Amino acid sequence: MSGNSFGKALVLTTFGESHGIAVGGILDGFPSNTEIDLPFIQSELDRRRSKGYSYSTSRIEDDKIEILSGLFENKSTGAPIAFMIYNKDQKPEDYLHLKDIYRPSHADFTYKQKYGNYDYRGSGRASARETVARVAGGAFAKILLKQHSIIITAYVSQIGPVKMKNDFHPVDLETIIKSPVGCPDEEAGDAMMTLLEQLKSEGDTTGGIITCRVNGVPPGLGEPVFDKLHADLAKGMLSINAVKGFDYGSGFEASSLRGSEHNDIFIFRNKQITTATNFSGGIQGGISNGNEIYFRVAFKPVSTLMKDQQTVNEAGEKVLLKGKGRHDVCVVPRAIPVVEAMAALVIADHLILQSR
Amino acid sequence: MSGNSFGKALVLTTFGESHGIAVGGILDGFPSNTEIDLPFIQSELDRRRSKGYSYSTSRIEDDKIEILSGLFENKSTGAPIAFMIYNKDQKPEDYLHLKDIYRPSHADFTYKQKYGNYDYRGSGRASARETVARVAGGAFAKILLKQHSIIITAYVSQIGPVKMKNDFHPVDLETIIKSPVGCPDEEAGDAMMTLLEQLKSEGDTTGGIITCRVNGVPPGLGEPVFDKLHADLAKGMLSINAVKGFDYGSGFEASSLRGSEHNDIFIFRNKQITTATNFSGGIQGGISNGNEIYFRVAFKPVSTLMKDQQTVNEAGEKVLLKGKGRHDVCVVPRAIPVVEAMAALVIADHLILQSR
Amino acid sequence: MSGNSFGKALVLTTFGESHGIAVGGILDGFPSNTEIDLPFIQSELDRRRSKGYSYSTSRIEDDKIEILSGLFENKSTGAPIAFMIYNKDQKPEDYLHLKDIYRPSHADFTYKQKYGNYDYRGSGRASARETVARVAGGAFAKILLKQHSIIITAYVSQIGPVKMKNDFHPVDLETIIKSPVGCPDEEAGDAMMTLLEQLKSEGDTTGGIITCRVNGVPPGLGEPVFDKLHADLAKGMLSINAVKGFDYGSGFEASSLRGSEHNDIFIFRNKQITTATNFSGGIQGGISNGNEIYFRVAFKPVSTLMKDQQTVNEAGEKVLLKGKGRHDVCVVPRAIPVVEAMAALVIADHLILQSR
Amino acid sequence: MSGNSFGKALVLTTFGESHGIAVGGILDGFPSNTEIDLPFIQSELDRRRSKGYSYSTSRIEDDKIEILSGLFENKSTGAPIAFMIYNKDQKPEDYLHLKDIYRPSHADFTYKQKYGNYDYRGSGRASARETVARVAGGAFAKILLKQHSIIITAYVSQIGPVKMKNDFHPVDLETIIKSPVGCPDEEAGDAMMTLLEQLKSEGDTTGGIITCRVNGVPPGLGEPVFDKLHADLAKGMLSINAVKGFDYGSGFEASSLRGSEHNDIFIFRNKQITTATNFSGGIQGGISNGNEIYFRVAFKPVSTLMKDQQTVNEAGEKVLLKGKGRHDVCVVPRAIPVVEAMAALVIADHLILQSR
Repeated sequence: MSGNSFGKALVLTTFGESHGIAVGGILDGFPSNTEIDLPFIQSELDRRRSKGYSYSTSRIEDDKIEILSGLFENKSTGAPIAFMIYNKDQKPEDYLHLKDIYRPSHADFTYKQKYGNYDYRGSGRASARETVARVAGGAFAKILLKQHSIIITAYVSQIGPVKMKNDFHPVDLETIIKSPVGCPDEEAGDAMMTLLEQLKSEGDTTGGIITCRVNGVPPGLGEPVFDKLHADLAKGMLSINAVKGFDYGSGFEASSLRGSEHNDIFIFRNKQITTATNFSGGIQGGISNGNEIYFRVAFKPVSTLMKDQQTVNEAGEKVLLKGKGRHDVCVVPRAIPVVEAMAALVIADHLILQSR
Repeated sequence: MSGNSFGKALVLTTFGESHGIAVGGILDGFPSNTEIDLPFIQSELDRRRSKGYSYSTSRIEDDKIEILSGLFENKSTGAPIAFMIYNKDQKPEDYLHLKDIYRPSHADFTYKQKYGNYDYRGSGRASARETVARVAGGAFAKILLKQHSIIITAYVSQIGPVKMKNDFHPVDLETIIKSPVGCPDEEAGDAMMTLLEQLKSEGDTTGGIITCRVNGVPPGLGEPVFDKLHADLAKGMLSINAVKGFDYGSGFEASSLRGSEHNDIFIFRNKQITTATNFSGGIQGGISNGNEIYFRVAFKPVSTLMKDQQTVNEAGEKVLLKGKGRHDVCVVPRAIPVVEAMAALVIADHLILQSR
Repeated sequence: MSGNSFGKALVLTTFGESHGIAVGGILDGFPSNTEIDLPFIQSELDRRRSKGYSYSTSRIEDDKIEILSGLFENKSTGAPIAFMIYNKDQKPEDYLHLKDIYRPSHADFTYKQKYGNYDYRGSGRASARETVARVAGGAFAKILLKQHSIIITAYVSQIGPVKMKNDFHPVDLETIIKSPVGCPDEEAGDAMMTLLEQLKSEGDTTGGIITCRVNGVPPGLGEPVFDKLHADLAKGMLSINAVKGFDYGSGFEASSLRGSEHNDIFIFRNKQITTATNFSGGIQGGISNGNEIYFRVAFKPVSTLMKDQQTVNEAGEKVLLKGKGRHDVCVVPRAIPVVEAMAALVIADHLILQSR
Repeated sequence: MSGNSFGKALVLTTFGESHGIAVGGILDGFPSNTEIDLPFIQSELDRRRSKGYSYSTSRIEDDKIEILSGLFENKSTGAPIAFMIYNKDQKPEDYLHLKDIYRPSHADFTYKQKYGNYDYRGSGRASARETVARVAGGAFAKILLKQHSIIITAYVSQIGPVKMKNDFHPVDLETIIKSPVGCPDEEAGDAMMTLLEQLKSEGDTTGGIITCRVNGVPPGLGEPVFDKLHADLAKGMLSINAVKGFDYGSGFEASSLRGSEHNDIFIFRNKQITTATNFSGGIQGGISNGNEIYFRVAFKPVSTLMKDQQTVNEAGEKVLLKGKGRHDVCVVPRAIPVVEAMAALVIADHLILQSR
């Protein structure tokens, strides 16, 4: 494989550039004879597109999915499911001024170095537009997971330095949906909005953290020693644009703790073996233990500023990069369905692997 | 594949349980006609085994590697390189009391759930002893990287709550080697030692963080969109026992920053294009940019305590787990070569992929 | 992967059913910065569609390829190349009478058994229409091979019991193209045409053999022990609809020969080492040796007859299957570009693997 | 992967050279908690070694398998099963005279070209000794298949020009075992023996054909469009040393037949749907249909003669190659368990894939 496929039993291969004809993918290995809820799949794409707060990109796409194969009478056939979404709102002329210019902290330089030929329009293949195909593929995975009562819920837990409090657990889905930034803590959400307004006025941007919780995963998923469940989650998350870090369960904080504080004591409750705490984040030895799986995904600030920046062009000459175009102040709210999609693909992949 | 192979062009497949006959692996895809420095490979295994500070496991293994195939007249032949290390110091009787007991935060429960048949002696396949094969495979990868002047240096930057200062960069390899805990900051290293002594006296354990720096990687390594260089590093690190988190470059801290603070401005220096800062951690758009790659790996506290703990057995009955056996207070110093090995395998894999 | 991807470094993943919206694929791993001759790619699809002799299917398709991604300014970018061909001439109503009926020697029964939900219209995914995507993918591979002066030429060497003589070597491409059945032996070609006319008048069908020759392959391609060059060719050929057998070099006839007759003696000619004969078919020990690679591919007779046949339906009840619809008397002439395409994909894949 | 692994869900990775320390492999993906009959595994290795007729190699190996991991209390644990067989009867000095000489129709030339560094002793990695690991891996696969009542029986159907009659079906296992050449037709077997005696006296060699029958495969195995069951069988067979061809069911003969002769008419018998004939060889559309799967594997003559042969050395200079050493007149009888092993690995792999 060459980098554009994800998964072992359930494999998503994606294609498409930001300002090409279309983005899409092929999902291979999806179990046959499964009823496919097409409106649900469209609604997942809509979630990604329209996170309604006013600080997100003003690019408007229909993002209407077209299924090209793999379904018959609304059920999967076991054949590969191909889908695509046309890029309707292309404005390649917006990018002509960027030809040969390396924008700071973008992929322009590395793509040019690696591939020689680079579709610089809207970052081409490196654009976050590519995540549309992930969300579509993840929506199919969610349909599979739903049959097994597995539910994935991601939300924004930090934007810039503004963090939500830790006590909103279990999180309420309705609050997340109502929040313009996708945060279950209303107070923190308000502070995040204030921060985003200020950054926008200054032409600046910021990053943030998405927390994701997966409930209903049965014990036994994960394939140690290398394909541990959390190792595949980490790879999936780090493969998303702008992601800089991943931890699960107690995560980075575990480093500071003592074993006696951190160990999850096994107990017998409701006729089954479970643990008194869940620092393990639902995974032990790389295998799910039946508890809630939770993890954090850190995003860097958006690299495209509405401010002028110094940079160089291909010839190494200094260039002043003007801030213009249509861009997010913070991608994190719109990345919620992308995180969920990658989580769904990982869990569904391991569910199929384990059901062998 | 079924979870015990790592890599795409350079593939390490490992085998072995803690108290089985041997651990080892097969490295396939290693370039032919490469001189193999066998003493170097043995020395890497020795580093893993013997991190000399007195708080590490008192289990003694020779860990003498035997190469079974793939070399001829001290050079690689392009055939798979098989190697193994006998488990000489097996004391399975030390573990008989653990049969049917689920130790807190170990993999006993999940392995039993997933596989039905579980070699509980010393955690079997889930033991950190498995990492011997990673270090051996990684040593071969390092030989390849050395030919390309790529150098990997990992060190301990935190143990428990004790963190090193951030200003030991570039790190001095000699200081790391001299440090009983593998920390380049002598003062922090002393504090770490004090902490470990105290924990040992209390029968307790702790976690920590390893930082890893990779120098000399040429621009162009990494296969977006899914097999981004840092995504494969993340997977490699999270696949190591006890690891809970990974971030690279600015990492989790990036979430709090503004784009205008965080962007790495391109400049022209020494006749080539580079960046003024390196928040990107040497990777942009999933592809190396020629700068130093650096990342952090968070480890949880050791789960085996020298204290009594409450737990349950397979039948769900309460059991008091006595603290005994031979165990590390903190695995982080001994995990340094494991982190380096996984990094070497990832970088070498991508080097081969890119040289196609 | 789940059966719809082919190749290791250059990976073609295909999708599409005979009477669905489109067939197509994603080609991942194609080297960047390569000029793409789009009219050539279209011409390969035209070859597959229109092998002009009057005994081929009367279904007319434009088979106009649309490239959705991976090219920029007519050159490959290293991003996945997605393409599709709409199914314009769908007549699903022609197939309604086949619902729940198992046609003899078709895939109806096995697809229904395996997948539960089966798109029976025109055999769905099991249709030879699927090979359009192979021909498109193979055309890209041929562009790569052409840069390395590697030329693939397939032709019909047998239809039904009519075999061409063995002395048309080296074969003349023009003769093959002029031949209505794609046979370089005019006399045999005429006899084949006569046979096909007779079979058509009787509503019957037949099989045949395609021979394929690959010239210009450098020594060194092939990855023993399992991914031998001829093993991958075998898999590629056997994956084509209706193929029943494969042999290379001396093939099945080698079984009857003595070592002293069969060995290819090494000689020194034109300043390089070569062999006096080429029973090895250009491959020794699974690795190309620089000689011409040649192999044969056996096709079974077309299963759809214009005669009535006895069969059963899903309930096991006897059904008389009427001969109707539009179908080939013999697929072999139209399969020439499919054989070439799979050969091109295999050789290009190994070329990339070897150039690492 | 790099050529030394086989399978998707059940993956065998092999290692070892003819005159290295050991040959062996790692079998990953074997279902856990399966009772392992170790004497059976040893007996399969013995079958390969000792096909008792006097014309096989006089090299004597114990071929005693050592299991290094993956079993606990005689059952599989789900961890990778590593095994090795020491090379005890090494006589590398027998091969010193072959250094730098390219033996006709051996892999010396191509290995040297591809890898630069070549272990020429007994052909190194290219030796048929490598098949020991396949037989061991296949023996594990057979244990799995036996649980599903799937039985694989291979036998010699042709040696040189001597063919068995076609009417020994169903074949009697006892007759095969009793036959010194592994042929179920006693009369043909005697003629084969006579031929082999004569060839031995002349210092010559020959090839042959192995037929393999697989009974008990349920409908539904195979992953079209590329990983058709017979395509994977073809690849497995062509990956065996000296194999030149593969066909299944009606095979190459199908090319000459008419559709009306060749179609397998569906009928209803014993309360289930089956076919009146089995030209399809148990596979339709790439998926097993429940009938017997059968196929043929063609082997070329042994390349090592006891006669002098002309050849060249690395410098291109003419060399007279003396016939000496210990070698088979015909490998086909000893290849029976190798064919069965590869068939077992393919069927078991697809069984696991399908049981997902």
